[in-house]
This record gives sequence, C-alpha cells and structure tokens, in this order.
Amino acid sequence: MHPVVALDVMGGDQAPDIPLQGAQQALNQYPDLHLRLIGPSDTIQAHLSPAYLEHPRLSIVHAPDWIRMDDAPVQAVRQKTASSLVLGVQQMLQPEVQAFVTAGNSGAAVVAASFYLERLPGILRPAMAVLFPGQQGHTVLLDVGAQAQCRPEQLLQFARLGASLARHMLGIERPRVGLLNIGEEPNKGHSTARAAFELLSQSELHFTGNIEGWDLPRNRVDVAVCDGFVGNVVLKLAEGLSEYFMDICPALPGTPGADRFNYTAHGGSLLLGLEKLLVITHGRAEVPAIVNALELARKTALSQMLTHMHAELKNEV
Amino acid sequence: MHPVVALDVMGGDQAPDIPLQGAQQALNQYPDLHLRLIGPSDTIQAHLSPAYLEHPRLSIVHAPDWIRMDDAPVQAVRQKTASSLVLGVQQMLQPEVQAFVTAGNSGAAVVAASFYLERLPGILRPAMAVLFPGQQGHTVLLDVGAQAQCRPEQLLQFARLGASLARHMLGIERPRVGLLNIGEEPNKGHSTARAAFELLSQSELHFTGNIEGWDLPRNRVDVAVCDGFVGNVVLKLAEGLSEYFMDICPALPGTPGADRFNYTAHGGSLLLGLEKLLVITHGRAEVPAIVNALELARKTALSQMLTHMHAELKNEV
Repeated sequence: MHPVVALDVMGGDQAPDIPLQGAQQALNQYPDLHLRLIGPSDTIQAHLSPAYLEHPRLSIVHAPDWIRMDDAPVQAVRQKTASSLVLGVQQMLQPEVQAFVTAGNSGAAVVAASFYLERLPGILRPAMAVLFPGQQGHTVLLDVGAQAQCRPEQLLQFARLGASLARHMLGIERPRVGLLNIGEEPNKGHSTARAAFELLSQSELHFTGNIEGWDLPRNRVDVAVCDGFVGNVVLKLAEGLSEYFMDICPALPGTPGADRFNYTAHGGSLLLGLEKLLVITHGRAEVPAIVNALELARKTALSQMLTHMHAELKNEV
Repeated sequence: MHPVVALDVMGGDQAPDIPLQGAQQALNQYPDLHLRLIGPSDTIQAHLSPAYLEHPRLSIVHAPDWIRMDDAPVQAVRQKTASSLVLGVQQMLQPEVQAFVTAGNSGAAVVAASFYLERLPGILRPAMAVLFPGQQGHTVLLDVGAQAQCRPEQLLQFARLGASLARHMLGIERPRVGLLNIGEEPNKGHSTARAAFELLSQSELHFTGNIEGWDLPRNRVDVAVCDGFVGNVVLKLAEGLSEYFMDICPALPGTPGADRFNYTAHGGSLLLGLEKLLVITHGRAEVPAIVNALELARKTALSQMLTHMHAELKNEV
C-alpha cells in the first residue's frame, strides 16, 4: 500500500507558492508518496512547474474557495463548504487517502476534521500532538491547542493517543506517560489535574506520575499530557526562548540541536483521535516545514498507526 | 527609614548553612540592610561566624521548629506554629519589618502569609510574581504558582498588582499589560481567559491585549498575567530550556544574558497582594540566590512599593 496524502494548496500566509514548492520537493524526495493537491485548479495549473502537471503520483482536486487565517473557525467551516480546507478534510472520507496536510487556519482545521471524520473508539474530542525535542530525543506532547479546557477523562484519552503514537511512530514499546503539572506530588495542581492523576494511575498505561516544565526538554517521559491551553503556551514559549538564545549567542545557530524548536521551519502537529490523520503546520511555514509535514503524514500512513490505534483503543472501551 | 527584613534560616534543602551565608554576605553588601534571622537560636549561634553574632544590624528570633519541604502546606502551617516559616511570617505583623525571605516550602509560605497577613484592598488571594527575563529587559509575570486555578476577577487583580510592581520597582510609568493566551484575538482561549480579556479591556489599566508564549522572552508587554498553573509551567520550562541550550552549546554558558533563567542561582518570586512582602526562593537556592532575594526585599522596602500599591488599589475598589 502506498501512502496517499492530500495537501491544502491555499493554506498558510504564503499560499499557493510555498505549499506547491513543498509538494514538488516531497514528490522528488519520497518515491512512494502520492499527493492530491486541493485548491483552485486554475491557480494550481498557473503556479505548478509544467513538468509536474502530468506527474504520475500527483492529482488535483478542484476547490474554488478558501478559508482565511483570520476567519472565525466554526462559521468558516459551515459556510465555505467549497474551500480547500473543507474539501481536503472530506478527501479523507475516501479509503485510500490517509492524511491531509494544511498550513491554514488551525482552528478551522480542527473544527472541520471533528465535524466530518469519525472519532476513534472512546475519544470525545481530538488533540493536537507534537514531538517536543530535548536532550534524549523527543517527548510526545499533547494537547497543544485543540482543546483549551479539558475534563480529566479527556486527559486520559490524550495519554492513550500519545502512547499509541510513541509506540508506532517512535518505536517505544512501553512509553512512559507523565502528567504536566506544577509539582511532583499527586495532590499538586488544580482539581482537573488531581482527578486526571487518579485516572492515569488506575489506567493500563505506564504512568510515571507528574512532571514539571523543566522535565520536557529533559525528555523525562515519552508522552506528556496537558490541556491545550498549557500545551500551546509551552510550544510557543519554546520557540520564543530558542529565538532569545540564538539572539544572544552567535555560536548557537550553527550548533546541532539548536534549531529544533523552530516550528515555523520544521514543525507540524498531528491531530489525533480521528479515523484519519490531519497534519497542521504553521501559517508562516516555509518549504522545509511543508516537506516535513508531508513526510510525517507519509510515515504515519506507512506505520499504519491509525489502524493500531483503533484496535488498542477498542480494547479500552 | 532603613529596610528591615526577616530571613528563614531553616528554609531550603541546604539550611541552615546557605541562608546564613547569604545573610552574612548581604549584610556586607548592603550597609542599610537590617536582618532578623528566624530559626533555632542554638543552631544559628553554632553556624554563624562569631563576628556576626554581635553585628549591630542583625538580630535573632528563636523558632524551635521548622516546616519541611515535603510537609503538606495547610496542615504544616496549622500544626507547626513555632516553625521558622510561621514565626517569620508573623514577624511581618510588626510595623518595622517589611519583608520575609524564605527558601522553604513555598506552598506553606503562601498558606501562612495568606492566613496571618491582611490582604491589600480588593485582592481575593495573593499571587506569586517573577521578573521574567528577555530581549528588552524584564516582564513581570504572575501568577507563577500561588493559585493554580483562577477566576477572571483574580486575573484582573493580578494585573493591577503586576502593574504596580512594574511602576514602582521597574520605573515604568504606564506599564503595558498583556493576558497570556493561545492566540491574539479576543475570543481565543477558554472561558476564563475570554472573560478576563473583557474585564481587562474595561479596566483602568493599559491593557494591550492577548500575548502568546513567544511574546514573553520578547518582552512585548511589561506585565503578563496568567493563572498559577500556566505561570509555573512557563517558569520551569524556561529553566529547563536554558539548561538544554547550555548543554548543546559550550559557548553559551559564558555569554551575557544566558544564565538569567536559572532560578536556582538567581531567582526569587514575590508574593503580592498582602500588606507585607514575602520573597520565596528556590528550595535548592545557592548563596547568590539568597543574597538576591534579600536585595529584592530590601529594594521593595526602600521603594515603598506596598504603600503605593495600597493607595492605588484603594482607588479601584
């Protein structure tokens, strides 16, 4: 089975150029990757290098409209049913399309995916996960922005999703799961954190307890769980601090490992909890970020992570 | 008026040595500083250099007991009424003592201060503030751990406390206040954040809107407000990331500005919202951190910040 990935041509501040350049580069780099470009067909034809128009692993799905970065998510998804974002999400209703990549309005992407796609067994709402870099590799961090406020049960669900990702994408058989909190003791934090601690302790997961902010870059756990408010602040603070240190130390930018927190250049987050995968990159994403996002979608498809996730979650409900 | 500061001799992992060394150094460094050492008098007499026992600006307040780092805060404050932490807080009931510095159990410190000290006008609960370093100087960040869960009114109160601190300690006449959120638009975040945005917009403060994680090290505002859960994660993540970058880049540790996120070495947080000031340093604080905390207490006393804060808050209720 070859990976088939849909790409939002109109997503991001630099659409359609950056997504199209990313698409071309990814096709060259990954000989098994099949791409579907979602956007206005005349725009795509005008901007794509002629050599790619007839590419055997490329197809175009016409979407005349698009959602803007500052559109209100729910309203935009309801009204702009012919937008590249909505039609891209709908592409995943076809069995052969495993993932959709967008650098567009992330709120609208979450809304559209939640609306059109089936949820995995036992999952109330999807969560956005990133691979947070650190001294020992990566920690799966979720949620980083899909659900600003969470119930304890949702944090348990996120932990299951993250653990499954760590198993199938990072090859960690028994991932250590931590709850991001403000102290190590079980009674720390607010009532949601305390209740989530209880649920995680009683679960089938390898829950190692609370972790604190500094434990993230130390990779003390393989999966760190928090609500989307905390996770989003963490992600953006890491980017800002990386910028700060680069700024004060001229030797740092060239150092291996220094640039890993720059999500504009490299990152993509995975929307987990649905039957198909959405990869959301930064609105200011550059070409390498698009290529990385497409590669992430490709790898996920090849690993059959979602099939495994479905089976594992079904056991728990 | 000279500054009189009380110091918890039994606070922190390395008590009494580190607090006592810090006390001696601070007395040498600040010729106007008067110190009261709170702890078991025999322990203090045994550990203090003989030259300081008769120091004209030093006095000892006997406290036979102490609260341990892992004691449950509420219970410890209730039961250990003869502990250095409780007696230190009670010292502030005397008019001439303006501040108390502890490297001890921070939860117990917040509980004891909230219990024994009067609140400033219109303040429900105190907040812990730090000076968060960045490219343009500092941002007053609060709350960093006193209140894990906050109502919107409390976030407004924290903003007022932070703005007053910025005015009187950083000399910023009209501090820019930002709400730490997960997007710039007013409707971003959870219901508490949205309600706080409304309250801040209607307030007398110079509220410049929502800020995101990366805006903290950019010092986009002078005062950043959040609940104690988010603020505590932010603070500890900054320390962990600073450690990460130091680790990968040998040139960084010597670079000016690189070490500013190391709260173990330098930091102290200010408990604001009460009639007197509590300065809480890290349990693993080293001598320079104790000296800095005493200097922070001294400067606050000299600036008469609390008197100004009282007057300003009274105008708003």
